[in-house]
Amino acid sequence: MKIAIVAPSCSLKREAAALVVAIAAARGDCELAIHPQCFLSEGHFAGPDAARLAALRETMADPSVSAVWFARGGYGSNRIAEAAAKDLPDAARRKIYLGYSDAGFLLAAFHKVGLEVAHGPMPQDVLRTGGEAAVARALDYIVQRSDSALETGLDGPAMAFNLTVLSNLLGTAIEPDLAGRDLLIEEVSEQYYRIDRAMYHVTGNEGVRAVRRLRLGRVSDVIENEPEFTSDGEAIVRDWCSRSGIAFGGQADIGHDAGNKVVPFGPSEP
Amino acid sequence: MKIAIVAPSCSLKREAAALVVAIAAARGDCELAIHPQCFLSEGHFAGPDAARLAALRETMADPSVSAVWFARGGYGSNRIAEAAAKDLPDAARRKIYLGYSDAGFLLAAFHKVGLEVAHGPMPQDVLRTGGEAAVARALDYIVQRSDSALETGLDGPAMAFNLTVLSNLLGTAIEPDLAGRDLLIEEVSEQYYRIDRAMYHVTGNEGVRAVRRLRLGRVSDVIENEPEFTSDGEAIVRDWCSRSGIAFGGQADIGHDAGNKVVPFGPSEP
Repeated sequence: MKIAIVAPSCSLKREAAALVVAIAAARGDCELAIHPQCFLSEGHFAGPDAARLAALRETMADPSVSAVWFARGGYGSNRIAEAAAKDLPDAARRKIYLGYSDAGFLLAAFHKVGLEVAHGPMPQDVLRTGGEAAVARALDYIVQRSDSALETGLDGPAMAFNLTVLSNLLGTAIEPDLAGRDLLIEEVSEQYYRIDRAMYHVTGNEGVRAVRRLRLGRVSDVIENEPEFTSDGEAIVRDWCSRSGIAFGGQADIGHDAGNKVVPFGPSEP
Repeated sequence: MKIAIVAPSCSLKREAAALVVAIAAARGDCELAIHPQCFLSEGHFAGPDAARLAALRETMADPSVSAVWFARGGYGSNRIAEAAAKDLPDAARRKIYLGYSDAGFLLAAFHKVGLEVAHGPMPQDVLRTGGEAAVARALDYIVQRSDSALETGLDGPAMAFNLTVLSNLLGTAIEPDLAGRDLLIEEVSEQYYRIDRAMYHVTGNEGVRAVRRLRLGRVSDVIENEPEFTSDGEAIVRDWCSRSGIAFGGQADIGHDAGNKVVPFGPSEP
């Protein structure tokens, strides 16, 4: 199986690319085609919008590619997400798309037009402690749709997003339809007051209030709050769920770490 | 004229309180009633939600109070904004409410139910370089509705918000009706990638796309972006206005500084 890697947000590190290629080669069940765009750099981004979009569209249109794997997060996929999801070639519909964090903008846009997407580890995760397991899990899912790669609490339609990414999706053309689904969220490198504010925003949205339940993944690398915030991630999320009438469904096994499990978004009606 | 000061977000510094009281006393045209709640502290906030809400509701209901002046920003007014705007006593409708930054949540909620609100300097601004002028400007507007306090480019209905606060308002019950109005935004202490993401979110909203035009106040104390962002505040805002079909109306004289001019929201139909 041929898996294309593109970087719609920030540049992929060359050492990460080498490591994931070696992991795939050792498996023998897939071949990674790392698009040269992954190593472009223009300021914050892995090349200009046009270059990131072109590489993404090229891999989407390639009938020999069975999966498009987003190289890493950072910031920037929102800038090309709507354009990437327009006027899709047939080949784009015969693939799976995998990523998380900033790539959530693409998961939302692609799922909305009927593509198969899943929230899960990305190539640059190989550089995390224990990151080989994250990459193996992603490949197990991409190549075999392996159940062992899945978040274990999934028992119905679900979506997973970084909280801040979800907050920035709401009200846009690519806002996901969350009605009746489990919503899994995770967060990284934010202050608690920002997490509280994002939860206010997200749970204040009528579409989000239509979820079946909300489950919380890891809230990691929290940035110090000055003065100290007298609450933590789970307490904040429980509080806003309670205020907004959303059922809190407990913890979810996702996050910005090597343990990040795969959450397929399931069928959508475009 | 009696002006009540309450702190719906973070605590007011005592030295700021003393300075604004002295300024008001020297003017002789107003009396500041600083609610003791301003000096409460519970973690991030100026007391628990219930205490902040109670102080705010008390001053709103007080017929002897002609204006409620929000002490400062920070974070937290969103946690009480909807409750503060419910079941209003008549006295609440015979006042003006002034503030900015995090207080934007209250400006939105109060304007939506027909109260007179304005975006402008707050008591704690007295501690800024040149802050006495900001306080004098706020009092000139509160006491005399002085034209000299106003942002000079106003030539029709307008609203002003901190960009991040506006982003977190969209889709909630207190989302402002921006149709046909000038929208003035300003930002402080954010990284450019976050400003770009917030502009994506805000300009992706249909309600925001109905503004007459968007004008940009100061983008100050920008936090360093790693890697460097190859754009600045005005370029980012012009880019998203252009992408979303919103007319860019140039600069606005508002921001997190002593120069911050007053922007009244004008009449609303609750």
